[in-house]
Amino acid sequence: MSLVFDLPSRILMGPGPSNVAPSVLQAMALPAIGHLDPEFITLMEHIKTQLRQVMLTENELTIPVSGTGSAGMEAVLCNLIEPGDRCVVCVHGVFGGRMADVCGRYGAEVVKVEAPWGQAIDPADVRAALAGGKTKLVAIVHAETSTGVLQPLEEISTMTHEAGALLVVDCVTSLGGHPVRVDDWGIDACYSGTQKCLSIPPGLAPVSFSPAALNAINTRKTRVANWYLDMTMVQNYWGQDRVYHHTAPVNALFGFHEGLRLVLEEGLEARWARHRANHELLVAGLAELGLELLPAPEHRLWSLNAVKIPDGVDDLAVRKALLTDYNIEIGGGLGGLRGKVWRVGLMGCSSTPNNVNALLSALRALL
Amino acid sequence: MSLVFDLPSRILMGPGPSNVAPSVLQAMALPAIGHLDPEFITLMEHIKTQLRQVMLTENELTIPVSGTGSAGMEAVLCNLIEPGDRCVVCVHGVFGGRMADVCGRYGAEVVKVEAPWGQAIDPADVRAALAGGKTKLVAIVHAETSTGVLQPLEEISTMTHEAGALLVVDCVTSLGGHPVRVDDWGIDACYSGTQKCLSIPPGLAPVSFSPAALNAINTRKTRVANWYLDMTMVQNYWGQDRVYHHTAPVNALFGFHEGLRLVLEEGLEARWARHRANHELLVAGLAELGLELLPAPEHRLWSLNAVKIPDGVDDLAVRKALLTDYNIEIGGGLGGLRGKVWRVGLMGCSSTPNNVNALLSALRALL
Repeated sequence: MSLVFDLPSRILMGPGPSNVAPSVLQAMALPAIGHLDPEFITLMEHIKTQLRQVMLTENELTIPVSGTGSAGMEAVLCNLIEPGDRCVVCVHGVFGGRMADVCGRYGAEVVKVEAPWGQAIDPADVRAALAGGKTKLVAIVHAETSTGVLQPLEEISTMTHEAGALLVVDCVTSLGGHPVRVDDWGIDACYSGTQKCLSIPPGLAPVSFSPAALNAINTRKTRVANWYLDMTMVQNYWGQDRVYHHTAPVNALFGFHEGLRLVLEEGLEARWARHRANHELLVAGLAELGLELLPAPEHRLWSLNAVKIPDGVDDLAVRKALLTDYNIEIGGGLGGLRGKVWRVGLMGCSSTPNNVNALLSALRALL
Repeated sequence: MSLVFDLPSRILMGPGPSNVAPSVLQAMALPAIGHLDPEFITLMEHIKTQLRQVMLTENELTIPVSGTGSAGMEAVLCNLIEPGDRCVVCVHGVFGGRMADVCGRYGAEVVKVEAPWGQAIDPADVRAALAGGKTKLVAIVHAETSTGVLQPLEEISTMTHEAGALLVVDCVTSLGGHPVRVDDWGIDACYSGTQKCLSIPPGLAPVSFSPAALNAINTRKTRVANWYLDMTMVQNYWGQDRVYHHTAPVNALFGFHEGLRLVLEEGLEARWARHRANHELLVAGLAELGLELLPAPEHRLWSLNAVKIPDGVDDLAVRKALLTDYNIEIGGGLGGLRGKVWRVGLMGCSSTPNNVNALLSALRALL
């Protein structure tokens, strides 16, 4: 019929999107219904209930934003920040840097806490930053997609709340692959993407706001600068009143509902264990090839493996050969890690022993 | 399997979404590929080419924004407006009012030009507003989804350019159903949605920027406040450099590509004629039932028919019966027209004689 129906089949082992389950694709292909149809409103309620289970939260305002993960970041920050607010932003990779950029655009006084790329943020540095003045929020990336680092959160959460600030967490690459305990960890606002460990096509951004975060939003002195992502309105569209705001992407939400159902059917604990096991299988296999990961063992993501490219190996040539000869996509490095690491995603449906073995075999042949 | 697979089939004759062609749904259900995959990059180029053909423009920056039509509105306004800019915003329905709201959030000095709901904006009023001071842009809705009014643009375009201002047009409910001649009419920036006359599920917003608009964006003195929709970055993601910004909603874009292909296969002229013919069939049938439209004949949209609800008729009861007994969705009135009009969409795949006849038969039985 046309170009789009001739697309290749890929094993998606990059930083996202990951492979999508057939039933999620089937759900997205169901005939559209109206976004104010009673049947769709019932579906929205099911989605909120499922999403709370996946995010381990009781937060009322737990919904998918009608944009990609980056829109989730912006939705959280633009609603919480008022001009002049002091924001402590942890930067240990591209996405922490992006948070600092977004905070600045909404008029925040941004105080950066940095760590070298490939390492986790030191809680002592956050404590020092908090001591510098009355702080509105601390923003930190749980799973840095650019470096493969898993950031421990509990100690930072405690000190953030002791300072009277809100904890904002980017869990784009952890939700559905690693434990993300929104309530237990005292996360006040977080956002994720669908195309990572949830294995749903990109286009939606799950977000959750604690009662304290929601209170900060609903008692703002200034309007939210961003109309599309203004939670003072969006919460009424997803709430009981169902006040028209924008037209929800109904087919994407069909897929989202089915994808969340699959996550809960597998079970969170089982899903985390699967992600861990396939990560360990990959690391062991890479070691046999003489390849190692950038982050230290205690700070490694299971979902995104930053593999150091050996000296003398042509980054682009290897990735091109993987794609064209093996139909395997892996990611290159971003920013300062360009040409220095490969980013191997083992997310959602892409996290399987067969995929790990296929990649290891291909790398063995290519290196 | 689950709730989502038990959804009803509806004839979608509300203000959107409209019914979607089977091949568009099939395209959306293709396995995802990476957003930086060379095959996907080729697809993005095809999409830009097709979209220019549908929008009748040579504008280089003609792309789908990764959000719904409302995000398209915000993308156009947040990029063009800098704090203090004088913006003349025409308000003759909900969506003009929304544009004024968005302009205000980005720091514009908003000068409203109003017309009663159900009527078109008088160009003389725009001329008077332009005379009031140096103006950055004139914003106007081509197809007011809340009132069913088609707004003539050519005279307003001329006076806007004579005043050295940019013309911003909302063509959410006209693109693909009515002529929208971006270049011929001197439109500097416009946005649409996918779920109206293009008959693609909601989730993307086609936008186009003229060279003059792009120049205004690329010579801004201030950063765009909105990170996600910042065209100074998004243009590089969709441009030759393909600089990573966010992850494009790949499956939605598969459907978008196929939907545009269907529009071009039918032909723009033929598609407009179909929308007109089915509108006329509806109006004639409504007249036999004693029902009439809100706008005067010369200002009626073919895609969205605002039908006056006769005295004594229960708005909600009729719409509920249409939905539950006939599986036909029509829309209710918004804002001041709540309870006073029904909004009957005849958009894209929903614009067929069979649908018109089905609705007329049902109304005959119900009234």
